[in-house]
Amino acid sequence: MKKSLIALALVSSVAVADEGMWMPQQLPEIADKLKAAGLELDPNELTQLTEFPMGAVVSLGGCSASFVSPQGLVVTNHHCVYNSIAYNSTPENDLLANGFLAATMDEEVAAAPGSRIYVTKAVENVTTQVIDAETAKLTGKDRVDAIEENYKRIVAQCEEDAGHRCSVSSFYGGLEYYLIKQLEIKDVRLVHAPAEGVGKFGGDTDNWMWPRHTGDYSFYRAYVSPAGESAEFAEENVPYQPEHHLTIASEALDEGDFVMALGYPGRTNRHRLPSEVENTFTWSYPNTVERFRDNLDIIAAQTEDNKDAELKYASRVAGLNNYLKNRQGMLDSFANSDLLQRKQAEHQALKEWVSSSAENGAAYAEDLQAIEQLLAERHAGERDDYYRSLATPRLLGMASVLYKLSQEQVKPDAEREAGYQERDLPRFEAYVAGFDRSYDASVEMALDFYNLKNYLQTPAEQRDAIFDNALGLQAEMSDAELRDLIARWYAETDLSELDVRNALLEATPSQFADSNDVFVQAAVALYPQQQAEQDKAEELAGQIQAAYANYMRAKIAFMRQQGEAVYPDANSTLRVTYGTVTGRDHGTYDGTAWTAFTTLRGIQQKATGEGEFNAPQAQLDAIKNENYADYYVESLDSVPVNYLATLDITGGNSGSAVLNGKAELVGLAFDGTLDSIISDWDFNIDNTRSIQVDSRFMLWQMEVVDGADNLLKELGIK
Amino acid sequence: MKKSLIALALVSSVAVADEGMWMPQQLPEIADKLKAAGLELDPNELTQLTEFPMGAVVSLGGCSASFVSPQGLVVTNHHCVYNSIAYNSTPENDLLANGFLAATMDEEVAAAPGSRIYVTKAVENVTTQVIDAETAKLTGKDRVDAIEENYKRIVAQCEEDAGHRCSVSSFYGGLEYYLIKQLEIKDVRLVHAPAEGVGKFGGDTDNWMWPRHTGDYSFYRAYVSPAGESAEFAEENVPYQPEHHLTIASEALDEGDFVMALGYPGRTNRHRLPSEVENTFTWSYPNTVERFRDNLDIIAAQTEDNKDAELKYASRVAGLNNYLKNRQGMLDSFANSDLLQRKQAEHQALKEWVSSSAENGAAYAEDLQAIEQLLAERHAGERDDYYRSLATPRLLGMASVLYKLSQEQVKPDAEREAGYQERDLPRFEAYVAGFDRSYDASVEMALDFYNLKNYLQTPAEQRDAIFDNALGLQAEMSDAELRDLIARWYAETDLSELDVRNALLEATPSQFADSNDVFVQAAVALYPQQQAEQDKAEELAGQIQAAYANYMRAKIAFMRQQGEAVYPDANSTLRVTYGTVTGRDHGTYDGTAWTAFTTLRGIQQKATGEGEFNAPQAQLDAIKNENYADYYVESLDSVPVNYLATLDITGGNSGSAVLNGKAELVGLAFDGTLDSIISDWDFNIDNTRSIQVDSRFMLWQMEVVDGADNLLKELGIK
Repeated sequence: MKKSLIALALVSSVAVADEGMWMPQQLPEIADKLKAAGLELDPNELTQLTEFPMGAVVSLGGCSASFVSPQGLVVTNHHCVYNSIAYNSTPENDLLANGFLAATMDEEVAAAPGSRIYVTKAVENVTTQVIDAETAKLTGKDRVDAIEENYKRIVAQCEEDAGHRCSVSSFYGGLEYYLIKQLEIKDVRLVHAPAEGVGKFGGDTDNWMWPRHTGDYSFYRAYVSPAGESAEFAEENVPYQPEHHLTIASEALDEGDFVMALGYPGRTNRHRLPSEVENTFTWSYPNTVERFRDNLDIIAAQTEDNKDAELKYASRVAGLNNYLKNRQGMLDSFANSDLLQRKQAEHQALKEWVSSSAENGAAYAEDLQAIEQLLAERHAGERDDYYRSLATPRLLGMASVLYKLSQEQVKPDAEREAGYQERDLPRFEAYVAGFDRSYDASVEMALDFYNLKNYLQTPAEQRDAIFDNALGLQAEMSDAELRDLIARWYAETDLSELDVRNALLEATPSQFADSNDVFVQAAVALYPQQQAEQDKAEELAGQIQAAYANYMRAKIAFMRQQGEAVYPDANSTLRVTYGTVTGRDHGTYDGTAWTAFTTLRGIQQKATGEGEFNAPQAQLDAIKNENYADYYVESLDSVPVNYLATLDITGGNSGSAVLNGKAELVGLAFDGTLDSIISDWDFNIDNTRSIQVDSRFMLWQMEVVDGADNLLKELGIK
Repeated sequence: MKKSLIALALVSSVAVADEGMWMPQQLPEIADKLKAAGLELDPNELTQLTEFPMGAVVSLGGCSASFVSPQGLVVTNHHCVYNSIAYNSTPENDLLANGFLAATMDEEVAAAPGSRIYVTKAVENVTTQVIDAETAKLTGKDRVDAIEENYKRIVAQCEEDAGHRCSVSSFYGGLEYYLIKQLEIKDVRLVHAPAEGVGKFGGDTDNWMWPRHTGDYSFYRAYVSPAGESAEFAEENVPYQPEHHLTIASEALDEGDFVMALGYPGRTNRHRLPSEVENTFTWSYPNTVERFRDNLDIIAAQTEDNKDAELKYASRVAGLNNYLKNRQGMLDSFANSDLLQRKQAEHQALKEWVSSSAENGAAYAEDLQAIEQLLAERHAGERDDYYRSLATPRLLGMASVLYKLSQEQVKPDAEREAGYQERDLPRFEAYVAGFDRSYDASVEMALDFYNLKNYLQTPAEQRDAIFDNALGLQAEMSDAELRDLIARWYAETDLSELDVRNALLEATPSQFADSNDVFVQAAVALYPQQQAEQDKAEELAGQIQAAYANYMRAKIAFMRQQGEAVYPDANSTLRVTYGTVTGRDHGTYDGTAWTAFTTLRGIQQKATGEGEFNAPQAQLDAIKNENYADYYVESLDSVPVNYLATLDITGGNSGSAVLNGKAELVGLAFDGTLDSIISDWDFNIDNTRSIQVDSRFMLWQMEVVDGADNLLKELGIK
């Protein structure tokens, strides 16, 4: 095995068939591959962000979605609107359990506070504005400050176009910067979600698994002012009319067909250095897995007989479970792979290439050495601060954020730290307003006890005297004393009241300083130290930015020399990935394989009538009666439910429109299989499969089970 | 669906590719199909029972096996020699758990009493001798008696060739009769069995399941007298030297390859009437499933803290579990099939064909009507007698059999009932001698209580006064009274003692009548009634035989008219079935498929270090160290363990040699998958898969883990 390690290393970062989260403007570079794979459109069409089909693709901030009607109807995953369903649910009217269908637009309800629909309007390379001549000369915190200054100026200028939200995103580890301009739709309403027994069928058990039978789709609608402009929720608002929307495929999707996903993948780490891989898989992820397991146990114990608290934490529990399974899956894959060795061999090859000419050496050698030292410094710091960083009670975290906001608000808007400007206020308001819906004191107290106990057991030199003093923590506290202390905080604080939180949104620093609330006092006491820590982190970040960017420049040059287009790691910006519908010749268990499609039969097999597999009776009856409407597929002898494809997606792609070669909608991406999650670090075509809900299942469920005739008509189906 | 029911029905009994358990002499009839499938031999070679390869194929009575060396080495399934391993096991030296390997012939140990190896020497059509002109005129019991008389004469004549065992088997439901002449090898010794964690890996959990990873192989050796004749076990005996033996394939077996299985399938029901299908699946099997579940619970409870009793019942528990899973699998498949409707439609088509001409009508119409009435009568009787038939304590059953033997022994040998002749005595001796090894009074008492309680709850008219009187049973007994009664029987009886049982083997009827043993007394009291019931059953059987044979004659004529060869239902005689190595496009769960081969990886996945998945540590180490010896298969990146094929097999085929197109050994058939068990009634090529242990796994395990170098050498491998 070892003798070919170097040879393998040379091609492992190179895009193989189906790998790649391409920026739209890169697609012409790979036009031949796209055509060979089955794309019937001219790849140049996909580079036009305000034309069809890209103009129909939107972001929900963390999820992807797309317009599917001229009246602003948006389709995405059920799990992407989960918060909005939960927000409108009560124990008496449990929309999560029962599903929701607005029979008319009047019946559509407001999505959870802070819900947004972002429509990307322009993407512009602003690298030379972010790292201008002056900035390029700086290092450390000065460099970070200068970059932030430039960011803010560029964003402010862009946002002069009212109703838009602009951001500057870093590509290739800080080598390039792009300005993203998005229309921000603030009035988002929930239109339709199937019952949880459909939209979340299989629950955490099936999450990341195949075979899968999840109807993970739901609908929002975008609303704007009567004048057609971005506006907060208002009765008089009207549906937004997008210039372009997707239509549902009229041709049947088959195994082997070309598909592409258009969406906003969150974050990948394909270009990371070996030391980052090592730190992540041997320290960071194992610790996270342990902590999340414990947190889930604590939440389960505290909410066991409390339906109200259970609903409040449902979303967080889902998130923790999702994250846990993801990270454990990555750890398992890592244990069975030679990723670290390959990364090391790749990096060695890169270093040898750098040493191979005086020109390369002059350009890259110094930064290649520097980046490894700087990363080692950062990793060491993370380990020292680990337990302290987790020990902040949630109410204290909120108080700290609001106090910092009050400090920043003293300054002129342009001078405030990014994230604390006027434009950010609605997010703070939503955060404060929605807090109650995911907060229960008994759960938080139990979590605090767990985190603080871990923290108090760390060596004295890793503890934080200001933090200890502010909260009255002592190293030698017994469990009972710690529990008593925590109980006193929660008895005293009134941050759980909306009025109090709203008041803090408007409070000045001195009003904070005058507060008697234990968490507000602690936030004020901790602030100077937090700022100092932030400065220190920025100093390191500034050094890393310069060195990392040059490391990436070297890597790209090395790869281009081998004739390969290089796509940037995912960073929540609009990307296109393509692949084919296909199963896998090896399944979860030796002796099994995966077929490309699942069918309604699998729902019958899995349905238990309760818990995670609580398929609605009406659905089971329809399956039993072979009531397939127009969605029967002969080769499957049923209606397809989910399908596998080789699409290169990650978190953030959830809800992505999946299109056929003609750019017609054939499904929504919603998951990947467990042993392909490692693809965030290391793409492996043999294992990596994305999971899509088939648009035919969505239509079948809407027509036969949920009677969503109004929406089918709007989708152009009926 | 319904409109095509008749059309489908017309072809459903017709042999499709891979279906069929062919008598060797039938193979030239399907020579074209065999050649097309991949057989390289001339099919005529397979009709020569004393030539290669058929001369190497043997029966163990209930299992199949084959000679694999010139020194009488026999390979078969681990589960076929399970009794012999258990027989030689003690709590101190648990051969089941640890496996067994005789390093030299001196270390080979006697198989369980009664173990036999039968080598088929000749098969002769004796229909006109069994149903001779005189017999053909008879009906009812007279017909049965005449047939039995003819059987015995034919068999006696055949067995004049010493050391041979002859039998007459009925084919096509009594339409044809064949005389089977077999060499009977009585000195059978256990040579090698892997640990139970290999040979029974997966246990009852994996039984009838895929993916499968069971090393279900073991070795016997046949011994004969120094003169080369069949002989009971004796120190001076020598290995039997078969004229032919199989050799292990030198070429790799791949997916899609031709394979054939040579063995002794026990019993299928493909030619049954609709009423028999209905009675079986709606009454008989559901009742059996319920009863076996209860029996297993009772045995488990009684043996929970009794290792000795647990070992004694291990074989019976395995058998019950196996049977239970089989029957439940059939019931599930039946529930999801239209078998009964098709059978009814087929039968309707047959009746219409019979009515379609005066000639057909005259030949078949009367018997076709008669057989339905006669079967209805038999089914009604079975239902009435159901609980009584199960209520006989095991010791009483033995006493009854031995008493009947004593009654028959009064007569000249030729006049005795078949099964009670001189030639049958060794079987009785083995039965009596081995009884202790599977008997524990506390278990039997608990089973008796369960069965008798069920019986006592039946209506008075279904109870048996003689039985009640003989055992002191009363309808209104309380549970406590019944338990006391049963306890008294077991306190009084001495049938659990070998000397007593051996004495009864020699006893005269009057010595039985003088016995004070409660079970012997009951046996004597019940005898006249049992004989009367047997006469009554024979009267019905005689009527059924004539009508059933003519029904089959009609069916064969009808099928032949459609141009199809018709193979007889399995009846424990030598058959050949062929097919291909292939997975399945649908697995156990929607969204999965089955690959053709499993590999060593699956053993790692399943191994738990205990219970049914207790793979030996040495095996796991070898897998972990990728110690594949010469058995690595690149396409699997491992060593194959089990594989699927479309072979048409059933119980009795266990241990069958599976050969490639050149008649080289590529594995042993040992199981079928759960949803193909229904093929005993209804062959379905989409679902039916036989499971084989790959000969490469067997050799790998023997070489790398068990160090069976002596046997590998004998097999011609090393």
